[in-house]
Amino acid sequence: MARIALDAMGGDFAPSATVAGALLALGEIDRSHRIQLVGISDVIRRTIDSELSGALAFLAPHATRLEIVEATETIEMSEKPSTVIRGKPNSSMHVGLRLQAHGQSDAFISAGNTGAQMAISSHVLRLHPGLSRPAISTVFPTARQQIVVLDSGANVDCSPQELVQFARVGSVYAEDILGRSNPVVGLLSIGEEAEKGNAAVKEAHQLLLRSGLNFQGNVEGRDIAMGASDRGPFDVVVCDGFVGNALLKFYEAIAPTLIQLVAKHAGLSHEQVAAVLKQLDYSEQGGAPLLGVKGVSIISHGKSTSRAIKNAIKVALRAVESRMSEHIGRRLSENGNGGAVA
Amino acid sequence: MARIALDAMGGDFAPSATVAGALLALGEIDRSHRIQLVGISDVIRRTIDSELSGALAFLAPHATRLEIVEATETIEMSEKPSTVIRGKPNSSMHVGLRLQAHGQSDAFISAGNTGAQMAISSHVLRLHPGLSRPAISTVFPTARQQIVVLDSGANVDCSPQELVQFARVGSVYAEDILGRSNPVVGLLSIGEEAEKGNAAVKEAHQLLLRSGLNFQGNVEGRDIAMGASDRGPFDVVVCDGFVGNALLKFYEAIAPTLIQLVAKHAGLSHEQVAAVLKQLDYSEQGGAPLLGVKGVSIISHGKSTSRAIKNAIKVALRAVESRMSEHIGRRLSENGNGGAVA
Repeated sequence: MARIALDAMGGDFAPSATVAGALLALGEIDRSHRIQLVGISDVIRRTIDSELSGALAFLAPHATRLEIVEATETIEMSEKPSTVIRGKPNSSMHVGLRLQAHGQSDAFISAGNTGAQMAISSHVLRLHPGLSRPAISTVFPTARQQIVVLDSGANVDCSPQELVQFARVGSVYAEDILGRSNPVVGLLSIGEEAEKGNAAVKEAHQLLLRSGLNFQGNVEGRDIAMGASDRGPFDVVVCDGFVGNALLKFYEAIAPTLIQLVAKHAGLSHEQVAAVLKQLDYSEQGGAPLLGVKGVSIISHGKSTSRAIKNAIKVALRAVESRMSEHIGRRLSENGNGGAVA
Repeated sequence: MARIALDAMGGDFAPSATVAGALLALGEIDRSHRIQLVGISDVIRRTIDSELSGALAFLAPHATRLEIVEATETIEMSEKPSTVIRGKPNSSMHVGLRLQAHGQSDAFISAGNTGAQMAISSHVLRLHPGLSRPAISTVFPTARQQIVVLDSGANVDCSPQELVQFARVGSVYAEDILGRSNPVVGLLSIGEEAEKGNAAVKEAHQLLLRSGLNFQGNVEGRDIAMGASDRGPFDVVVCDGFVGNALLKFYEAIAPTLIQLVAKHAGLSHEQVAAVLKQLDYSEQGGAPLLGVKGVSIISHGKSTSRAIKNAIKVALRAVESRMSEHIGRRLSENGNGGAVA
């Protein structure tokens, strides 16, 4: 039995996408689970009624497992994390995350302001000891298998020690969410040799060799597309949040662009294009956990549809059921200061 | 009348791809131009004979515009730039670039060891004043128009001043090679706001605002795929060589991967797939100039086919005929220390 808190107010298509996503999830997950819709209760109540009077009417029996949690403030996409942390203590993010900190919820999901979610998650849930910053870990579809790429945007300037921390927490993610045993870790660089890369990456390479992780060595941009380097497939790619974010956003945009190009050339039908896009669709994954916080905080894309929200709820459930956060805490404590052999 | 020196020994498919590429180019470019094949003359002579006795026999009349320049040493892909600069003074790279330094050639092209080519180019040709390092500028196909991305691998850790220098030389490239007037420059970051990015990018943003360049502001990974941000299309994207290289290599690998995926789903023919891949084919561009050296040094992909070499020769010709290097020198001298307003 898990209780998943969802920021009903977060995202470009909220609250209808969030409420509909919650209903869709309840229709698919085990009946022991409950969803806590956090936000302005009047708005949420009206949205539930409206969704259940339309195409989702068949989900009405599941609505009893929806709970509404009042949060009087909302955070806009343009607001600065530093001001909202203390400036909006009754935001849907604060309220949802405090439920978890107080043992009244098991996970939190938002498609709202990512920077705010990171800051408030770290503030309310706190970080596991041994970690200096949390990381956003995103799943990339590749030619071969899905891989975890982190950090994909939380930290723009990373120390070598932080890159090693990302490798540790990313490995737990690959185990618990993707079901990989003894995940293979690659370090993004501009050449496979240990001496290639910027200063932080070169030092991180040396630390990773002594980290006890299943470290494959450096991987390059092309290897990310293939899910494998010359040394074989890998499960986790570690990089700083600047390059990770650039790659993620480039990938999100180039995939539909290329597919439209093929479709135009080859005279494909809309249905054929849609079938391919579905394979690559980020909404299939739904959410990227903010790894390192004591608890579960799932970051969803601002443009999340109800299906993306539904899938984010499933990711949250897997994180709760696999006890991912506990495993991350244990893994970090086994390795002193986040795993950088001091 | 231009004289283009080609490293006959450089690249995975040399010397047959380089010699065949030279012959193909001579068949298409103005008859006033000559190509200097630099390398071990016996090997080059034999390769010319063999190419002209096969499918390229029809190009035999053009072979008179081929010149062979002896270079007794070759540089392997695995050799370190630092050791070959002085350690192999008679390499095909040294000899080809020295021709240019001595006024006996107008451009140099190699598909060999990129690090060595950068180092030897800077050493032999020297840099334009106002520049601390040269940059590799690559053309990316986008949903809209081609754009120039630099640096794509020469410099992994870049100062804000260097990013501004890249913006200046990249703008000249967009003018002279892509024919854009008053090119629009974007700075790669992880958000469009000026305060988003790592430390170097945030400072570069401020310097670019005062640079006199047509600076659009920050662009994100997704904008690179589209060739445009919310503020409109752009011609040049500036980034450090670490992220530029990761994006370039990712793009090179993800495009065929995605297209094969579509082809499988939609039952496309090989011919249909080939037609699309051609649009995105990097060999269509052929070469990336090392911008900032006094002269023309074109870096071709190690896997260059004869067609890629042919196209690299055409890029070199455009650089020579447009007087790109001279324009870069003038642009930098107009702006003091590489354009960072001191």
